[in-house]
Amino acid sequence: MAKEITSRSENYSQWYNDIVKKAGLADHSAVRGCMVIKPLGFAIWENMKAQLDTMFKDTGHVNAYFPIFIPKSFLSREAKHVEGFAKECAVVTHHRLMNDPNGEGVIVDPSSKLEEELIVRPTSETIIWNTYKDWIQSYRDLPLLINQWANVVRWEMRTRPFLRTAEFLWQEGHTAHATKQEAWEEAELIHEIYARFAEDYMAMPVIKGAKTASERFAGADETFTIEALMQDKKALQAGTSHFLGQNFAKAFDVKFADQNNKEEHVWATSWGVSTRLVGGLVMTHSDDEGLVLPPKLAPTQVVIVPIPKPNEAILEVAEKIKAQLNEKGISVKIDKDKKKRPGFKFAQYELEGVPVRIGIGMRDLENNQVEIARRDTKEKSSVSLEGADRYVADLLVEIQENLVQRARDFRKEHTSEVKDFESFKEVLESKGGFIHANWDGTDETEARIKELTKATIRCIPLEGSEPDGNDILSGQPGKHKVIYAKAY
Amino acid sequence: MAKEITSRSENYSQWYNDIVKKAGLADHSAVRGCMVIKPLGFAIWENMKAQLDTMFKDTGHVNAYFPIFIPKSFLSREAKHVEGFAKECAVVTHHRLMNDPNGEGVIVDPSSKLEEELIVRPTSETIIWNTYKDWIQSYRDLPLLINQWANVVRWEMRTRPFLRTAEFLWQEGHTAHATKQEAWEEAELIHEIYARFAEDYMAMPVIKGAKTASERFAGADETFTIEALMQDKKALQAGTSHFLGQNFAKAFDVKFADQNNKEEHVWATSWGVSTRLVGGLVMTHSDDEGLVLPPKLAPTQVVIVPIPKPNEAILEVAEKIKAQLNEKGISVKIDKDKKKRPGFKFAQYELEGVPVRIGIGMRDLENNQVEIARRDTKEKSSVSLEGADRYVADLLVEIQENLVQRARDFRKEHTSEVKDFESFKEVLESKGGFIHANWDGTDETEARIKELTKATIRCIPLEGSEPDGNDILSGQPGKHKVIYAKAY
Repeated sequence: MAKEITSRSENYSQWYNDIVKKAGLADHSAVRGCMVIKPLGFAIWENMKAQLDTMFKDTGHVNAYFPIFIPKSFLSREAKHVEGFAKECAVVTHHRLMNDPNGEGVIVDPSSKLEEELIVRPTSETIIWNTYKDWIQSYRDLPLLINQWANVVRWEMRTRPFLRTAEFLWQEGHTAHATKQEAWEEAELIHEIYARFAEDYMAMPVIKGAKTASERFAGADETFTIEALMQDKKALQAGTSHFLGQNFAKAFDVKFADQNNKEEHVWATSWGVSTRLVGGLVMTHSDDEGLVLPPKLAPTQVVIVPIPKPNEAILEVAEKIKAQLNEKGISVKIDKDKKKRPGFKFAQYELEGVPVRIGIGMRDLENNQVEIARRDTKEKSSVSLEGADRYVADLLVEIQENLVQRARDFRKEHTSEVKDFESFKEVLESKGGFIHANWDGTDETEARIKELTKATIRCIPLEGSEPDGNDILSGQPGKHKVIYAKAY
Repeated sequence: MAKEITSRSENYSQWYNDIVKKAGLADHSAVRGCMVIKPLGFAIWENMKAQLDTMFKDTGHVNAYFPIFIPKSFLSREAKHVEGFAKECAVVTHHRLMNDPNGEGVIVDPSSKLEEELIVRPTSETIIWNTYKDWIQSYRDLPLLINQWANVVRWEMRTRPFLRTAEFLWQEGHTAHATKQEAWEEAELIHEIYARFAEDYMAMPVIKGAKTASERFAGADETFTIEALMQDKKALQAGTSHFLGQNFAKAFDVKFADQNNKEEHVWATSWGVSTRLVGGLVMTHSDDEGLVLPPKLAPTQVVIVPIPKPNEAILEVAEKIKAQLNEKGISVKIDKDKKKRPGFKFAQYELEGVPVRIGIGMRDLENNQVEIARRDTKEKSSVSLEGADRYVADLLVEIQENLVQRARDFRKEHTSEVKDFESFKEVLESKGGFIHANWDGTDETEARIKELTKATIRCIPLEGSEPDGNDILSGQPGKHKVIYAKAY
């Protein structure tokens, strides 16, 4: 297999597309803007999903499932929400096809027009709050801590696999609470879970912060975000958690009777991460040879390659190592293909990002050892057969730590602080990355900087947002020190 | 909580709806024919999904994800397929809404009309085979053993929660093979997996058989089915596995070069089970007090209820039992609510189908024992505290076995064999259930019997389909002995 991956330095965007395509993560489809998630890409998403689902359940959330269709009128109920989501969406208008009387094929049966059009959900606040109205009467029904794993559709004009697609897979949590305080704490809790997941499992360090008003979710009073830095020094918004106040409760008239039998509107949050995370994972760790996967999310953690090809003696040892590693909860594949050369296989597993490769040849067996290669640094070691399983288990932990440390170092290197607009522009163009700068807190300055430089305020960080000077553009007193970057 | 479940004898259909609603399995939604799957219903589906997914992966299948939309023209490619699925489907015609210039709300933006309409997938053979065309060139690319977990939409006119809904969740396997033999064996393998899952996990005995030509999946050369008998003596088609021959490969021009470099069309299967299984589970085991869940699929297997209310001594023992059971992989809930009465709680857990309830009161503790109640038979026993965990573990196994045995006995009792049409009608009306009868193998007789009696041929069973007489209606020589029933 020829790898033919464009190098990152040559064309980062093409490098990304090459990795996605050649490592077998996703493929284009016949439907504009929709991708096919291939087995390797889907297996990574399944691992992400399993871990996140555990974290949600451990904090008291349960899963449910709501309809994919939203009656058109529901979108209009919350004024900002409709602005944000009605623009580009898939609209179902008919429910039947018929044979074309003039020829071959099928046409839409005009008599099957729906009374009210249905929107394929771009997000589910409206249909869910319309349902919560029936489920919530008293404080005893609260909190509702519900999540759903689902597909959603947003008719994006410019799409890229995983990062921005018309259809994507995600989870969306929708919670209902008796008090503002409790809803706020829920939004914070999920924000924290997202950050922990990104750092501890994806090995992708993130900055936790709040979005500015203009970048908030349509219908939210506050949006918390985790922001990661990709290798091309652009930011990726990786997960958001919204405090919705009483906006949707008011739009759908959802009230509860409190302990004194007084009626009040319910407080809400919503929060989501999507298959976009797979794109973030690729762009954080991978290199010019292919995918680099953190061990905690790699579908295959260890591959054993017989050299030059499988024979009985080698396979016996391979099976023994596999059994020992499986015992430790480590997933192992033995490559039993007799036709392909080891060099070809090595390149294939590098491309697919398998964290650890064990090579076993006859001479290794004579010396009672195996060769162990790690994907992240490409270092190889000869390791005694006895204890090889412990060595591999430790190595997986080390690789996981190395990846997150490497990403932290990269971020540190590409994080700057500036005091004036000239430096801002220069740093943005020469170095890129995250730029801390004082902001006067106005929509106008934010919009103007975006217009002039394409950089946006990624967030008002939870830590270190005390202003210490004037706004870099307007010269007005700073309200927050924020983080700017160009972003996906 | 008032249970108010209609009894099965009074109105079976209403009983089913009551269970679904009151046990919290599902709820109606604002969208015609679509249901909301509530947390308990979804947790059951998650357990089914986890087990099936394991069985698929253990037999070499991998998961992937294909777009929800299918270009309209794709449906027409396979002649029978379009007949079967174009009739009632959700058609996306536009991709944007706009503010209504004449008033409030939003309307469809006429300028956003799609060049080609998109169908929300009713099943994915067409989009998947259009993709496989790019993935398959040579025998080395085969077999492809891919499954996806997804939502699908069929615009059904008459819907019932879980059993028949416009949108439902399912898995659909789509495999590609180099030989007819291999594809046929794949269809059989999955048929066997479905039957094993139904019997061993759902405790729902099924008959394995093949559908008649008129009941086959639209586009299949053979459809294998598993058929279960519900408590109202109607049959439920619970899962189908299709041998598709080369029909889709021909429709989408998918060929491979064999080892001699000769081109041939690829052989295919597809297979699926859906959230309909949740409905089948309810209708197989539940009673007039509520849900009865087989332990292997129950989200909560054991509930511990302090009597009359929790105190420190009781909770200490409860936590200890819980820890012991968790150790054995058994899921346990301790009801710590201090406000509700035990009687209320007992009724609630009966309604929700928790297989085993442990009651602990102060007098029990004095006697060093607990009270253990099983949901299936409602028997109670006083059990010594020491060894209570082993008792419960054994009891869960016993309940699982009892449920499947009870269902087998019920099916046996409601299975008949008839030799003439008068007896057929009489048995069908008086006793219902499965009726074995000789069939002449013609579409005409099959259709005529359906018209006269509403009974359909559920399958030509894999075992015992040798004819031993003439067709009950036509009097022509029997070709198969088949199984008739009224069905969902």
